[in-house]
Amino acid sequence: MGSVSIGLIHHPVVNKYNEVVTSSVTTIDVHDIARLCRTYGAATLYVVTPLKPQQRLVERVMKHWTQGFGGEYNPDRKEALTLVKVVDTIDDMMDNLSLDSDRVTVAVTSARDADSSVSFAEGRASLEQAEKSVILFGTAHGLDASVVEKADIRIEPVKGIDNYNHLPVRCAAAIIMDRLLGRGDLEKKR
Amino acid sequence: MGSVSIGLIHHPVVNKYNEVVTSSVTTIDVHDIARLCRTYGAATLYVVTPLKPQQRLVERVMKHWTQGFGGEYNPDRKEALTLVKVVDTIDDMMDNLSLDSDRVTVAVTSARDADSSVSFAEGRASLEQAEKSVILFGTAHGLDASVVEKADIRIEPVKGIDNYNHLPVRCAAAIIMDRLLGRGDLEKKR
Repeated sequence: MGSVSIGLIHHPVVNKYNEVVTSSVTTIDVHDIARLCRTYGAATLYVVTPLKPQQRLVERVMKHWTQGFGGEYNPDRKEALTLVKVVDTIDDMMDNLSLDSDRVTVAVTSARDADSSVSFAEGRASLEQAEKSVILFGTAHGLDASVVEKADIRIEPVKGIDNYNHLPVRCAAAIIMDRLLGRGDLEKKR
Repeated sequence: MGSVSIGLIHHPVVNKYNEVVTSSVTTIDVHDIARLCRTYGAATLYVVTPLKPQQRLVERVMKHWTQGFGGEYNPDRKEALTLVKVVDTIDDMMDNLSLDSDRVTVAVTSARDADSSVSFAEGRASLEQAEKSVILFGTAHGLDASVVEKADIRIEPVKGIDNYNHLPVRCAAAIIMDRLLGRGDLEKKR
């Protein structure tokens, strides 16, 4: 598998009325998804928000845990948070990703299914063939259609026992990254 | 698969020095793991803590989201939080689980591997054969050895690309429940 990054998107996402909004950063999501990135070998966690005060908030958290007392007290957290980059827009993220690569495959996840969505197995195979890729997670009620439509790969929703589909983004990201980037088997390796 | 419940354990767990402690309840863990229970069909989420003020905190959160304004505003959250029961001890949890069943299989999870641990595939098979079971998640730095040793099944740790093993309990629970209770394949069902 080539280099895989993660995008945690706060704009453009939709609210419960399917209106395009900019969601607030939830710092615990940054912590959790940074640790998931470190666990599964993702290169960078892009936190995408155009709001400068929110960007400063994330940068302050990062600074505390990577340079301050936090980095000494909890080196595991430091190791995870050094993977975080804060950017204004998805375009800025793509520019950053494209610096040393001509082609970046974009995969999106959604709690809503669609004819164009592929299975986790197919998504995994596509990521394995890509030189460089990024998996986008929408906060609030999910990525706006404009982002989903432009993606190269749309992954099917995580399904449980029925149609209940209300996992927090940090838990959805855990399951999706495990399915797409994990060791891909349920066998114990000795 | 029979009835499966989840135990979120705050005592006895260990701190970073492997001392037995009682950890604080993190309300976001209760929210997230309750939603995971609803997603994957777990019967009950037992929040196990002997500390009365912490129990009252959890009950206040539950009341807000199941009976108060929260239940009307966000019915999906209500549906998840109605699965939560607060108990003093693991023994109390087992008593409650045993009310209508002679045999409850206890599975534990740990970030540390051991000779006695089984693969996720084996753990899944054992749970499928059990009439009733409970999967325990330790907060802080994990379940105390006294709990792990008494369990029927010890599941191997979630492994990523290397030995980094520092996922928050809500993300570990997401991955472990998906592996043990999920649909168990990566194929899209049309």
